[in-house]
Amino acid sequence: MKQIKNALIAQSGGPTAVINASLAGAINQYISTDGAGTIYGAVNGIKGVLRDDLINLSEFFNDENKLDLLVQTPSSFLGSCRYRLENINEESKQIISLFEKYDIGHFFYIGGNDSMDTVMKLAPLCSEKGINVIGIPKTIDNDLMGTDHCPGYGSSAKYIASVISQMALDAGCYDIKNVLIVEIMGRNAGWLTAASALSRSKAISAPDFIYLPERIFDYEKFLYDIRRKLMTQNTVVIAVSEGIKDADGKYIAESDPAPKKDMFGHGQLGGAGKKLELLVKKRLGIKVRSVELNIPQRCASHCTSLTDVTEAYNCGAHAVICSLNGETGKMITMTRNQSSSYSIQYNCTDVSVAANGERMVPDQFISQSGNDVTNDFIDYVSPLIIGEKNIKYVNGIPAYIVR
Amino acid sequence: MKQIKNALIAQSGGPTAVINASLAGAINQYISTDGAGTIYGAVNGIKGVLRDDLINLSEFFNDENKLDLLVQTPSSFLGSCRYRLENINEESKQIISLFEKYDIGHFFYIGGNDSMDTVMKLAPLCSEKGINVIGIPKTIDNDLMGTDHCPGYGSSAKYIASVISQMALDAGCYDIKNVLIVEIMGRNAGWLTAASALSRSKAISAPDFIYLPERIFDYEKFLYDIRRKLMTQNTVVIAVSEGIKDADGKYIAESDPAPKKDMFGHGQLGGAGKKLELLVKKRLGIKVRSVELNIPQRCASHCTSLTDVTEAYNCGAHAVICSLNGETGKMITMTRNQSSSYSIQYNCTDVSVAANGERMVPDQFISQSGNDVTNDFIDYVSPLIIGEKNIKYVNGIPAYIVR
Repeated sequence: MKQIKNALIAQSGGPTAVINASLAGAINQYISTDGAGTIYGAVNGIKGVLRDDLINLSEFFNDENKLDLLVQTPSSFLGSCRYRLENINEESKQIISLFEKYDIGHFFYIGGNDSMDTVMKLAPLCSEKGINVIGIPKTIDNDLMGTDHCPGYGSSAKYIASVISQMALDAGCYDIKNVLIVEIMGRNAGWLTAASALSRSKAISAPDFIYLPERIFDYEKFLYDIRRKLMTQNTVVIAVSEGIKDADGKYIAESDPAPKKDMFGHGQLGGAGKKLELLVKKRLGIKVRSVELNIPQRCASHCTSLTDVTEAYNCGAHAVICSLNGETGKMITMTRNQSSSYSIQYNCTDVSVAANGERMVPDQFISQSGNDVTNDFIDYVSPLIIGEKNIKYVNGIPAYIVR
Repeated sequence: MKQIKNALIAQSGGPTAVINASLAGAINQYISTDGAGTIYGAVNGIKGVLRDDLINLSEFFNDENKLDLLVQTPSSFLGSCRYRLENINEESKQIISLFEKYDIGHFFYIGGNDSMDTVMKLAPLCSEKGINVIGIPKTIDNDLMGTDHCPGYGSSAKYIASVISQMALDAGCYDIKNVLIVEIMGRNAGWLTAASALSRSKAISAPDFIYLPERIFDYEKFLYDIRRKLMTQNTVVIAVSEGIKDADGKYIAESDPAPKKDMFGHGQLGGAGKKLELLVKKRLGIKVRSVELNIPQRCASHCTSLTDVTEAYNCGAHAVICSLNGETGKMITMTRNQSSSYSIQYNCTDVSVAANGERMVPDQFISQSGNDVTNDFIDYVSPLIIGEKNIKYVNGIPAYIVR
C-alpha cells in the first residue's frame, strides 16, 4: 500500500454556515483513503501555519458523530484570519519549513478571494518540495470567478428568502400603509440581495423591489417605486444591498454629513437600510421600518440548504482527491450539468482565475428597470436553496462542536 | 343533537410565530364538536367586527392540510389591529348587533394585555345576550399575569438562544479581542433577553452578560464587566433588552442629544445596542458590533419550539371547550404541574387578572450582580424551547397559507 504524506487544512476569511461541511468533507476523504497519514488543522488560517499552531484532526475526529456535528456547526471550527501574505519570500520559508516538520504533502485552504491569493502565491514555491496546495471555495457572497456558484451562498440565500417571507407576513398584519426595508450583505456584488426574490411564492409577493450594487441607486426613482406600489397595496417590502451607491459612486450608507458627535464619540448612523428608512419617513410620512439581517445571514445553521451543505462537503472531499492525484495551484469548482434537472460536477481550475477576480451579478440577471431580478436569475438560483438539513438539537438549541 | 351557536374568532396586537397555531386549535376544536355551526374569523381584530369584515373559516379550512399550513404560518392569518374600545357604549352595541346578525354565541380574542382589556369590557355586555367571550393569550413578551407563561414566548426564546449561539461562534472565529452586543425585544419586561441564557451549552459560554430592563443600567459597571471579561477571553457577547434604562429612568436608546438633522430629516441613531456599541468603541477602543435581532424574533417559523406550538394550539382548543361549557370573561391559562418532568394543565382565569397587569421578570430570576439570570430562571424557561416543529417547505422556503 502506498503511504500518503500528511495533510494540513485551514480556514480563512468570513465564516459561513457550511464552511465546516467542507472541512468535514476533506477530513473524511483523507482519513478514508488507504495509506493516509495524519490530517492536521491550522488554527486561525495561515497565521496558525506561521506560528506552528496545529490540531491533530485525525485524532480529534475519531468518531463519525463528531464529523456529523462538525457539518452542522457554523463559523470556522479551526478559527479564521484575514491575512494576506505580503512578505512572500520570508513567510513562504517559514511555511514550508513547518510543512516539512510535519511531513505535509497536501495543504488545503478554505476561503474566498484573499485565501485563493494565498494558494496562488504558495503553490509554485511548495511544488519544488512536492507539496500540493489546493483552494476550497467558500463565500456567502458568491463572487468567486471560475465556479457556477460558491459553497455558503445557497444557505445564506435560503435564510434571507425565508426570513423575508416571514417578515413580509408580519409587516402586512395591520390594515395600514407601511414600508419594510431589508438590508442584506454584499458590499460589491448583489448576489445575496438578489436571492431575496426567492421569498416570493403563491402566498407572498414580497420583496416588491430589489436594489443591487450593480446598478446606480437613484433616491427619486426609489421613492417613486414605493409611492406607485402603495397605490395598490398596503405593505411594500424592499430588499437593498448594504453596498448600494449613488450616481457619484458614494455608498448610500455614507451619504450624509456626519451628525454632531455625541457622548459616545461617534455619529455613525447605521447602514443603507437605516438611511432609506429615514428618507421614506421624511418624504412619504409613512410607517417605515428597516431591518439589517446582519450576522445570522452567514451562520444560521438551523436554516441551511441541504444542496449547499452537500456541495460544500463534496468540495472539501474533491480537494483531497485532486491533491492526491497530483494537482496543485488549483481551486475546486462546481460546473452545472446541462440537463433538465439540477446536478453538479466537481472540477478544479487554476487558482489565479479566482484569486484575481470578483464576479458581479451579470446584466442578464437584473431587470431592465434596475429594481428587480430576471427569470434567468431565478432559474439559476432556485436549485441552490433546495432541501433542508436535519440537524441535531440538544436542549432545544442546535448542537455544535468546538475545538 | 344539541345545536351549537356559531363562533367568531379574531387576532389582535403584535403577531407571533405561533398565534396561528392557537387559531388552528380553536377552529379544529370547534368544527370537530358535534352540532357545531359555523366559525367565522374577523379581519384585523375587533376592527373587523366593527366593520362587518368576516371570513367563513369553516369553509376556508375545509381540509386538514390547510390547518396544518396555518399552524406553521407566522404573523396573524386574520390580520391584526391595535385598537382599544374607548367608546364602549356605542361600540359594544355595534359589536353585539354583528354577533346577533351572524348568530354568534362564542367570541374568541387571541392577544395580549390590550386584547384582554377588550375581552374584559365586552364579556359582561355580551353575557346579557348569552354570548360568551374568551381571551386566548398570545405574546412573545411573556408578560401576561395569571399564566405560567404565554404562547409565543417559547418559540421566540428558542430563536433568540439559537441565533446568539451561532453568532457567538461567528464572533469568536478571529484571534482578536472583540465585543458583540445583541439587542433583544422587550420594552418593559426582560423575559426574552433573559432567554438568551439558553444559548449556553458545553460548547458555548455566550452570552457573557445579560442586562434586563428590570435593573437600572449602569454604563460604568457595563464597561467594567466587559474589561474584566476581556482579560480572560477574546470575545465577549452581551445580551441587552431594547428597554434598558439608566438611573434617571431614561431609555439608553434615547440617552444622548439628537444629532444634527441631516438630509433625511431625522437624527435617530437606533436602539440601545447601537448606543452601547458606540460607547464601547469610544471607551474601550475595541472591535465591537451590535446586532438588533428585530422582527425575526416574533416570526421565525422555521425555528419554532414544538412545545410552544403545541401549547398555543391547545390554548386555542381549550378556549372553545371553556366557552362551550358556559365560561365567559375568562382568559385561558397554563399551569405547570408539580412533577419532575414538565407538563401543563390548561385552565382559565378571570380576564381582569391579565388585562390590568404586566408581569416583570421576578427578583429570584435575576442574579445578584444584575448582569445575568439565575438557575431558577433556567429551570423555568428550559422546557419551553424543547422540540422542533417539522415544517413543510416548498421550493426551499417554508410554506404558508394566506387568506
